[in-house]
Amino acid sequence: MSERVSEPSARGITHPQGFRAAGLAAGIKVSGRPDLALVVNDGPSDSAAAVFTRNKVKAAPVLWSQQVMTTGTLRAVVLNSGGANACTGPQGFQTAHATAEKAAEMLGVGAIDVAICSTGLIGAQLPRETLLAGVEKAAGALEASPEAGLAAATAIMTTDTRPKEALAVREGWSAGGITKGAGMIAPSMATMLSVLTTDAVASSEVLERALRAAVRVSFDRLDIDGSMSTNDTVIVMASGASGVTPSEEELAAALTEVAKDLARQMQADAEGVTKRATIRVTGAASEDDAVVVARTVARDSLVKTALFGSDPNWGRIAAAAGYADAELDPDRLDVTINGVLLCQGGVAAADREGADLSGEDILVEVALGLGSGEAEILTTDLSHAYVEENSAYSS
Amino acid sequence: MSERVSEPSARGITHPQGFRAAGLAAGIKVSGRPDLALVVNDGPSDSAAAVFTRNKVKAAPVLWSQQVMTTGTLRAVVLNSGGANACTGPQGFQTAHATAEKAAEMLGVGAIDVAICSTGLIGAQLPRETLLAGVEKAAGALEASPEAGLAAATAIMTTDTRPKEALAVREGWSAGGITKGAGMIAPSMATMLSVLTTDAVASSEVLERALRAAVRVSFDRLDIDGSMSTNDTVIVMASGASGVTPSEEELAAALTEVAKDLARQMQADAEGVTKRATIRVTGAASEDDAVVVARTVARDSLVKTALFGSDPNWGRIAAAAGYADAELDPDRLDVTINGVLLCQGGVAAADREGADLSGEDILVEVALGLGSGEAEILTTDLSHAYVEENSAYSS
Repeated sequence: MSERVSEPSARGITHPQGFRAAGLAAGIKVSGRPDLALVVNDGPSDSAAAVFTRNKVKAAPVLWSQQVMTTGTLRAVVLNSGGANACTGPQGFQTAHATAEKAAEMLGVGAIDVAICSTGLIGAQLPRETLLAGVEKAAGALEASPEAGLAAATAIMTTDTRPKEALAVREGWSAGGITKGAGMIAPSMATMLSVLTTDAVASSEVLERALRAAVRVSFDRLDIDGSMSTNDTVIVMASGASGVTPSEEELAAALTEVAKDLARQMQADAEGVTKRATIRVTGAASEDDAVVVARTVARDSLVKTALFGSDPNWGRIAAAAGYADAELDPDRLDVTINGVLLCQGGVAAADREGADLSGEDILVEVALGLGSGEAEILTTDLSHAYVEENSAYSS
Repeated sequence: MSERVSEPSARGITHPQGFRAAGLAAGIKVSGRPDLALVVNDGPSDSAAAVFTRNKVKAAPVLWSQQVMTTGTLRAVVLNSGGANACTGPQGFQTAHATAEKAAEMLGVGAIDVAICSTGLIGAQLPRETLLAGVEKAAGALEASPEAGLAAATAIMTTDTRPKEALAVREGWSAGGITKGAGMIAPSMATMLSVLTTDAVASSEVLERALRAAVRVSFDRLDIDGSMSTNDTVIVMASGASGVTPSEEELAAALTEVAKDLARQMQADAEGVTKRATIRVTGAASEDDAVVVARTVARDSLVKTALFGSDPNWGRIAAAAGYADAELDPDRLDVTINGVLLCQGGVAAADREGADLSGEDILVEVALGLGSGEAEILTTDLSHAYVEENSAYSS
């Protein structure tokens, strides 16, 4: 059933039928690089669902989009880089509102049909007129071509080194997606924005459940530095243009495939990264416990610097697992790094030098021996480049 | 009432009457530097209390010391650097037990009167015979002199650059302390060990409550990198030799003064540090909430790298406060850095360049406007030197 289409021309949000996209340089970024994207669902269906940051300090576009998503429908998403529009008060909210109004006017829909996503520096107002002129221009540039999807993926990049697109093709229908970011890429720009599209027929209720199931095991399992943005947003729109109605499970599987692919791309592209690490926890009392242990190990600064130093320091991993808020029996703890069992039953099992961490990919396996709960968290090392990227530039 | 005695010769654990100490090179460290300390309470009282790491992976000396502390009494503490004796199984526990037996034999007390503290690499066995020979030698070198207290403080150093002692003198009695460590100093050696002494008369119940009160606002408010060691231990012993019985409040205040002084010294000496930061949260719904917000800001990698870059990036501070698990109203959030109000009511209040972060000390004030809860967390920046220290050496 699952078929990956790898040609760049076939990837992304415009592969599913019923979607058009545009991406261009509106002049929000002083660098003149692309900074505005528009994704439109031409239907026939306008089902949509979204997941937003749980940060209590929410950017204006998040507050706006949460409101419009209460209807479970959406016709378009406007996304901009070059400014987060967070901590900007009523003026910032008015900018988000005006952006939706402009897009709605251009598309002949209501402002309530338009979601907004922003990414960039926190605390600065967006240049409203520049933004609105950009929306007008983008509406005139909409296309269903692969190039248009790629242009949208490119316009939401901050310090990403490459645009990120993914696609899952099924019999008669498909699901696509674009994304930007991951904590390590850049400070307050750390925001993760993603738009997924599908031409499957799905009610907003089914779409909502399928999206949550997909996000839970993909974006929510990517943890670069533990920081949670004010702007994180994942939106899915279903056009129904294929006429195919997959089961909820089939839909969730396709969205999961796309979201996992995008999460892997974010992990790989995080700037300052020299190692990509997968923290796999098995034998936990529950899946929740497995996630907590894996996340705690993934976030531990001492573990992350050891990964950077190619040091198979299992003691730091055992210590991090030990302070995770989850059930753990220190006498049943096994730690395996890149296939070499270094700690068994909480005690050294082999010379740590036996594990070779010189490559770019590192697999850390923590077995708790308590139950059947398991989970993986994707993370990265903590490198000099991370410190440089996040300290040398005011961002 | 509170009088600081600043001459080095008067500081530390041997100032209170009834205590002797020793510190020497037992040969545990391959470098040949001091690695073994012994602190003895000659009474008349043997009241004691302790606080241990909450890590579920507990080192053998922690497991041993937790057992002996169930009596609420103690005659001596043996401390070693050069090895954590963590993740060492039954053999490691036997080493801790044998160490206590040896000290007890030399001092004419029971093994149950001797606590053990260790710090160093996790996962390696300590050289038992070397350690026991060192204990024998230390027992013969015990003195009540200031130099002996300093020798003990020196013997527990790992990559600390200087020994850490503190003293609070009251009318007729005093409290002293030594400590080592803080997360940033070195990886698995990140352990914080501290021994406090007082010649006040106090029951073990009073001592326990006074110690917990002191630790709660001192060591527990120091957060270098969020990692919790397998070996963290704070022990207080009361000799009663002064004959003075302070109130529980007076005792708690003296222990707090000593512990806060030691915590500041650990913050200042953390290797790789270029900035010392105090995160002060006010106006929280409760003190617990204030601690949670301050700790979350203090641990945020993006905040820490901004501090290293002398960047007054209040947006990162607001974002970190926003994902803390505490009550927060984004429209009431004020952020002040080094006295300059940069964010008021959740919106930019001044040009961020107005705050000068070029100095070594940075005060970040976060006002929540909700209640009267307040707290301070001491932390440091995230620097190139931290990454270097924790990645380049297998430790």
